Amino acid sequence: MSFTVKSPIGVFDSGLGGLTVVRQIRRILPAEEVLYLGDLAHLPYGTKSESEIRRRSEQCARFLLKRGIKALVIACNSASSVAFARLRKTLPVPVLDVITPAVESAVSATRNYRIGVIATYATIESGSYARILQKKCPDAEFFMKPCPLFVPLAEEGWLDGAIAMQAARKYLLPIKKKSIDTLILGCTHYPLLQGVISKVMGRSVSLIDSAIPTALKLKALLAKRKMSYDGVRQARLKICVTDYVRNFTRIGEAFLGETLECVRRVRIS
Amino acid sequence: MSFTVKSPIGVFDSGLGGLTVVRQIRRILPAEEVLYLGDLAHLPYGTKSESEIRRRSEQCARFLLKRGIKALVIACNSASSVAFARLRKTLPVPVLDVITPAVESAVSATRNYRIGVIATYATIESGSYARILQKKCPDAEFFMKPCPLFVPLAEEGWLDGAIAMQAARKYLLPIKKKSIDTLILGCTHYPLLQGVISKVMGRSVSLIDSAIPTALKLKALLAKRKMSYDGVRQARLKICVTDYVRNFTRIGEAFLGETLECVRRVRIS
Repeated sequence: MSFTVKSPIGVFDSGLGGLTVVRQIRRILPAEEVLYLGDLAHLPYGTKSESEIRRRSEQCARFLLKRGIKALVIACNSASSVAFARLRKTLPVPVLDVITPAVESAVSATRNYRIGVIATYATIESGSYARILQKKCPDAEFFMKPCPLFVPLAEEGWLDGAIAMQAARKYLLPIKKKSIDTLILGCTHYPLLQGVISKVMGRSVSLIDSAIPTALKLKALLAKRKMSYDGVRQARLKICVTDYVRNFTRIGEAFLGETLECVRRVRIS
Repeated sequence: MSFTVKSPIGVFDSGLGGLTVVRQIRRILPAEEVLYLGDLAHLPYGTKSESEIRRRSEQCARFLLKRGIKALVIACNSASSVAFARLRKTLPVPVLDVITPAVESAVSATRNYRIGVIATYATIESGSYARILQKKCPDAEFFMKPCPLFVPLAEEGWLDGAIAMQAARKYLLPIKKKSIDTLILGCTHYPLLQGVISKVMGRSVSLIDSAIPTALKLKALLAKRKMSYDGVRQARLKICVTDYVRNFTRIGEAFLGETLECVRRVRIS
């Protein structure tokens, strides 16, 4: 479990959505290597009990730690809600979630203190966005809206046609009417639908893709702890999955924005 | 584990979709009582391994048998694919799946021997429709099409608006072009979208809702084994679930077509 500045960043998610976070890490920290674990055999985490999500998150973290990561990013909203506090306390490496950076970014972007959050039912019902928003900005008003069709639309690759546009209008017009000026995309799949979301919400609303503030926070954290890799190299990305799912390559590449090259199936108990 | 003609029919599914089968059993066999088990804590079965689906199906069957059912209906396409053969061999009561009756009904409805099947990716990839169609009607041609958006559309209750209509057109027009005259709705959620499906396919295509031939086959089987209840009674419906899910009542009632009255949460290991 030893690591150096050359060691990779570990990232895990229940599925492939977390590759949107990897995409931003590779853009913002191009010299850092990444080891991604997609626990596809047990997706979705969102419908599981808290104790089960915690148990699975700990197994994912242990798998990555054993392979010598120097920092861990929990790229899954459900795991971030439930397992972040404990993993941050117990792991020997810095740990980031995706919810806190998104909320911090929204709080610094808003001017009228009216913030929207779109996410899965599971994430909204977990109350974690509400809790962290309340803590970081007690004066703000929050408006939450689950958008269940966005996940299958993203997975089908139906990102900008009439169906995506109409679903976006149906979900987002009620939240737009609340005069929010900032909207958090609280699900790793939603950035793929940023085009239609932005058309419906209009230019005056800032969209917060949690992947970007998470990668920026990771960059700051590594710098502060003197753990950044400052050399020049072709930084590798290794992807481990606990199972293969249908349309794996197509969906994974859409999220990642590059070719899936080094993918390995692994068993974690 | 003893039963009489008065005993209930046992029905299980990983979710609430199986209530579309219960709805037809209550319509076609109004004097029969039904005990439904929704294994919501472990949904969806479709993404699980075969051994895990088999294990869960056996636990569901055991739970229902202990409560004295006189027949078992597997109202889940994934469990029907994987666990039907073994349950039928090992259980002391008659067992029905939802795939065989749907295929038999399609084979007797078709005139041009061109049959379509729409279902989830998991069901289509399991190959069970193809295998049973091939066995029952080796001369027929089959055209399969996964329609992943139909499940969230049904769960959102977006059954007949522009979004449902456009999704139906996008999925179904390619299969309509194959000149099929019969279309199996191979997922328990799809009958809710029968309106838009039928508009896209046109009147000349017979839609096979597996719930109806399954209930008819159950009726014939009970009669043949002299296990039908011939009295007159207000037949009860008891629903057991291993977890509650969001929008439980709204979704359940949409599938069942009546009020959810007697629901109990149970634990099965």
